[in-house]
This record gives sequence, structure tokens and C-alpha cells, in this order.
Amino acid sequence: MITLASDFGSPYPAAMRGVICRRSGARLVDVTHDLPRGAVRESAFWLRETLPTFPPATHLAVVDPGVGTDRGVLVGRANGHAFVGPDNGLLVPAARRIADDDGVDWFHADPGDPASSTFHGRDVFAPLAATVHDVVRSRGIGALDAHERLSPADPTTVDLPEATVEAGDASGEVLAVDDFGNVVTNVPGTFLDGRETVTVNGDRVPVVETFASVAPGDPLVTVGSHGYVECDVNRGRGDERFGLGAGDAVRIA
Amino acid sequence: MITLASDFGSPYPAAMRGVICRRSGARLVDVTHDLPRGAVRESAFWLRETLPTFPPATHLAVVDPGVGTDRGVLVGRANGHAFVGPDNGLLVPAARRIADDDGVDWFHADPGDPASSTFHGRDVFAPLAATVHDVVRSRGIGALDAHERLSPADPTTVDLPEATVEAGDASGEVLAVDDFGNVVTNVPGTFLDGRETVTVNGDRVPVVETFASVAPGDPLVTVGSHGYVECDVNRGRGDERFGLGAGDAVRIA
Amino acid sequence: MITLASDFGSPYPAAMRGVICRRSGARLVDVTHDLPRGAVRESAFWLRETLPTFPPATHLAVVDPGVGTDRGVLVGRANGHAFVGPDNGLLVPAARRIADDDGVDWFHADPGDPASSTFHGRDVFAPLAATVHDVVRSRGIGALDAHERLSPADPTTVDLPEATVEAGDASGEVLAVDDFGNVVTNVPGTFLDGRETVTVNGDRVPVVETFASVAPGDPLVTVGSHGYVECDVNRGRGDERFGLGAGDAVRIA
Repeated sequence: MITLASDFGSPYPAAMRGVICRRSGARLVDVTHDLPRGAVRESAFWLRETLPTFPPATHLAVVDPGVGTDRGVLVGRANGHAFVGPDNGLLVPAARRIADDDGVDWFHADPGDPASSTFHGRDVFAPLAATVHDVVRSRGIGALDAHERLSPADPTTVDLPEATVEAGDASGEVLAVDDFGNVVTNVPGTFLDGRETVTVNGDRVPVVETFASVAPGDPLVTVGSHGYVECDVNRGRGDERFGLGAGDAVRIA
Repeated sequence: MITLASDFGSPYPAAMRGVICRRSGARLVDVTHDLPRGAVRESAFWLRETLPTFPPATHLAVVDPGVGTDRGVLVGRANGHAFVGPDNGLLVPAARRIADDDGVDWFHADPGDPASSTFHGRDVFAPLAATVHDVVRSRGIGALDAHERLSPADPTTVDLPEATVEAGDASGEVLAVDDFGNVVTNVPGTFLDGRETVTVNGDRVPVVETFASVAPGDPLVTVGSHGYVECDVNRGRGDERFGLGAGDAVRIA
Repeated sequence: MITLASDFGSPYPAAMRGVICRRSGARLVDVTHDLPRGAVRESAFWLRETLPTFPPATHLAVVDPGVGTDRGVLVGRANGHAFVGPDNGLLVPAARRIADDDGVDWFHADPGDPASSTFHGRDVFAPLAATVHDVVRSRGIGALDAHERLSPADPTTVDLPEATVEAGDASGEVLAVDDFGNVVTNVPGTFLDGRETVTVNGDRVPVVETFASVAPGDPLVTVGSHGYVECDVNRGRGDERFGLGAGDAVRIA
């Protein structure tokens, strides 16, 4: 199985699917092609939250504002999964979470001589994912060590910081805003234990377990599905209500 | 085969796909993940119009504004198809249409102890769909009766009302607006038989068989692909032209 | 394998998938369902750029502003691939590119008696694609000649014009604007050879190899992934910066 993720929208993902189908019989499963455009850190967050739900697979992901520069081409291996994408940090948090206590083995891949300098999803990463998938399938994931196009590498990383929690006061930031407008912070959900209300940057809001605990249009704070504190609105947009976007500082007390 | 439908947009459907792939080798086919957000009745309409085109399958659908409350977890069975989703009416019209004259058997499922109170698509419904699919595949759809997690249930229903037609005058409502802006009413298409024009809430419009029968930008009334009267604009948006949205009353004469 | 492309957005593609799954075990791969709505020429461009990446398959594509009129139903064959869609030019450039030096064989198909006059994707093209796929699979692509529903045809074509290049001055037009806002012209990429800047309709812009060669928000001209001159903005929208849309004239000097 090859999973596909990108910020390409439409129709460019089709060319990646076509290239892979031409080279491999692998099953294709789309993760999403609506990752936040050019936003490597937020996209890394979403991949970390979704790729671990899959069984061992080759995960192809492309959010690549440095396409055509000398940024490297990265292949990773952890816990039976393989990873293929640009060496800009995009896949590192996902691979580390899948690795759990084991480490991740990282490689740089020879990019070859791509047909374009602007669409490495089609010209570099999709064919490489087909190759990696077929190597893993035919010879086992250990065979990546011996592949002539791969050499050991230290990957570029991205920073998905942890919040600081002190004496009932949490200082963190917004990791991502989802499609519903829910504001996902990096404050651990356990911070809400035993609280009935909190302030979010000074704004007092009820702490609840479900969206439906407040009236439609009303704000709430809850433990989201990622295990972090989320600032949401029942059937509305938390990002607009709280004036928060990815990367913004948030203080919860 | 498991079909997937939700109002999740992106990237949450990926977690449902991952969870299912981890538990089942079932073929996955997306219906859509852009059902009208939180709109159970309109979504139920779209599922009723699309799921019956499929061969027997396990249909997973999640539009779930009551996620995390005590709303039940529903499993259905009709005509070789199985249905998995929240007990809020979402799947009832689709299952009844697929059942045709036969009835639908409904069950409540034990939700287990979900990891989150906000993402039951990932934590409850996707694993349950994988289980239902594998029970049906290995032991036949009749085996759902004996499954330890299922007990017979009366489902919550939603109202997809029929229009009232009297003496050339139809009083109905808008069931849905599609992606093109076409306004789908609940007035039967046969109402248009023999008419060259009708009024839509007082506004006189030609009755035609195809969009291209009127100039681009001009309004029209036609029998839509669902068999109902639709209020459309050729290469434009009927909802804007007629000022109509889902749930609005419409009088056609 | 059947590939699916349309301008249907959501949820209508689900009905095409369902109809095909009911009639055929073919693997389904989505190209996109966000082709430019009702825009046959731009959509034909995108299909020409993406379908050739696939291995031999049956390619179903529906962008069909003339649905329900007497426009024909087209089937094509080239280089082991089959094509199914409306006879409005949509699939012609893709089939010709796949044919390479060989020709394309075109057929009109009997549309049968479709259930609707507005959704031939579901009622005509999807069932026909399933039939074509199964004929090709069971009897070989040559068997299309003998199929009772097909008769030889001259297809309707669309015009994807070539630019005029004279003495360092190119007069062309915009073929398409992609999801990122990149403006794809029909001026061959080789036009940029040896140039450090060009003017786009009088506006002087640097010629670069990668987006990241200019600051975020700055304009650039590059050879895009289609081999043509593109007018782009690094991490911004070229269409807005240059005031250009599909079909607009562009002079590059």
C-alpha cells in the first residue's frame, strides 16, 4: 500500500497516481491533497496525527516550497513503514511517532534527473515511492539499506513545540486549525482535568466534553481528538471566534 | 467493499481510512467527505440518492453533530447491504430505499470506550465498519443478528417530506442545493408534464429538458436527476437566482 | 483500471463510482472531480497533461455543458487506452497525446435510453465505461470495433492553439490557471533559453528555475511542469498578480 498526501489540491495528484500505477501494482490510498499550502510545520502535524492509523505502508507526502532547490530527497523507515518526501521536516514527526521507542532510519535518495524543476511530486517522489514500495514488497524493508540510490542521512527537522504548564497556567501555541475551524493547541488535554471554565488569552470559556454541551454558535474548550486542548465553537468556527491561527501564541489559565 | 461518507472535509477522513485498513482488507470507495456540514437531513438526502447505486457493501457514514453525547451507534441491514453510523437519522432514508419493499433490520451497537469524545468517526464508526464488513464477508449478513455487540433497535428518523400537489399547484420545500447551485425540491418531476412555463414562488420560468435549452445565465425549471423538480440556471447558480436554500418552502404553479 | 474525471465536485461522482462498481470489478482511480466547471477546453488541457501518466486504462471523463442535447457519446482507442465521454472535444487532446504517432480510433456509442436528461455521468457514461472496460479486459481492445453499440465517428475537437514565436517575441494565450494560481501559457519553455528577464504584457519579471529563487510574494516566469512558460508568484497567486485567466492573450518578450 502507498498512501498519498500533498498540498496540491487538484488536478496534480492525478499525475502522481498515474506515475505510480504505471510503475507498480501497489494499492493507493489518499490521505489528503489539501494539506495547508506550503506550510511544512502544520502539514507535519497532520501527517503525525493520521499516518500512524495506517498499517505498515509506504507513505508518500509532498509539501515542498523548496522544490527545484538543492533540498534533499528523503526516505525513512520505522516499524515496518517507509516514508518518501522532501527533506524539509515534513515526515519527521510522523515517522518518529510511528517508530515509538525504536528509532527511524533515514536516507537521502539520488533525485535522478527530473523532467521539471517545479513538479517533483510527479518527477521524483512518485517514481521513488513506487520503487521503495516494490523493494519493500519483494525483498523486505531491510533491503532499503543496500539500495544503490540511498545513503544514510540526518534529516531536516521541524519544531512542533510542547507547551509550558506551570501552576495552572499554560503557555503554548496553535499547532493547526482544522477544516471545521477548530483551534488545536499544544497544551496537553490533561490540563483541563477538574476545571469547569478556563480563560483563553483572557477570554473565559466553559470546559466541556462534547460540542453539543453548549448551544450552537457558542464557544467551548475541550480535549480534542489529538489529545490536546482545543478552542472550538459548536457548529461554528473557533478560529474566527478566538482570533487564532496556526503558530499563534495561546495562554490558557 | 466499504463505502465512506462524511462531512469531515480534510484531513480527518484519512484517519478513518487508516483505521479500517489496519483492521480489514476491505476495498474502500469514497462516496464524499463534503456532505453539508452538520446537516443531517440534507446529508440523508444525498446518501439516499447515491448509496443505492452501489452493489451490496458496508456503508459507513458520519455526519454527527451529537458526537460524544448519548446518541446511539447504529447498524442496519437491507437487501445485502449493511449500514454503520450515528443514530440520528442519517442513514435511514438510504437504507429504506435500498430495502425497497423489504424492511430494514436495525441494531444498536455497543460503542466501546472511545479514545476521544469528538472523533467517533475514527474511534467508533470506522472500527465498527471494519468489524461489520468482516462479519458479513466471513459469515454472511445474517450473522449480524448474533453479534455480541449488536442489539435490535428502533432508529431515530429524519423527515424528508413529500410535497402537496393540488389542482396544478405544488407546495413543497427544498431538499438540497447541489454543488452547481441547482435547487432540488421535493415536487415530483411529473408535476411538469405538459407545462411550458411555471412560476416558482411567483417568478415565471421556462420548463425545459436540458440546461442548454436556455442561454447561459438564464433560469430554468427541469426534472432533475433525482426525479424531482429542480430550479436551476444554465451555467450559473440556481440557489442565488431563486434565493432558495435547503429547507426553504417553495410553491410551484 | 477505470480512471474518473469530471467537473462534478461533490457528491455526484459517488453515483458514477456506484454504477461502475455494480457492473464491473474494475479498479477505480480518481483523476479529479474539480475540473474547471463547464470549461471543456481547459479541462481538455488538464486531461492531456494527466491521463498520459497512466498505464493503459479506460478513461472516463465528463465535462458536459451540452448534457441532454443531441451531442454524441464518444468512445476512443489509442495505444492500449480507451476513452469514454461526451463528444465535445474533451478527450481528444489527451487521446492524441497518448496515441503519439499512431492515430486514435473514434466511435459514437448508442446512448440507450438514459433515466435522466441532466446526469449522463451516472446514466450513460459510467455504465458505458464499465462495458468498455469489460470488453477490453475479456476480449482485447480490438474487440471495440465489433461492439454492437459502437460505430466509427469523427470527433468534435477543441482548439488548444500553439503560440507564435518571432524574433524574441512570443504571442500566445493562457491555456489554464492551476489550483496554486500559476498561469500556464502556450509559449514553449524553450523560449526562455538564455534570458534573465522577460516582459509579460509589458511587465518585466525575472526568469528563474525554481519558485524559491525569488522572495515569497514576488513574481517570476519559469518553465512549468507542462513544458510551457508559466507566470507565477512564489507562494502567491500568479493569476492575480498578472491579471490573467484562461483564454487571455499573453505577449512575452
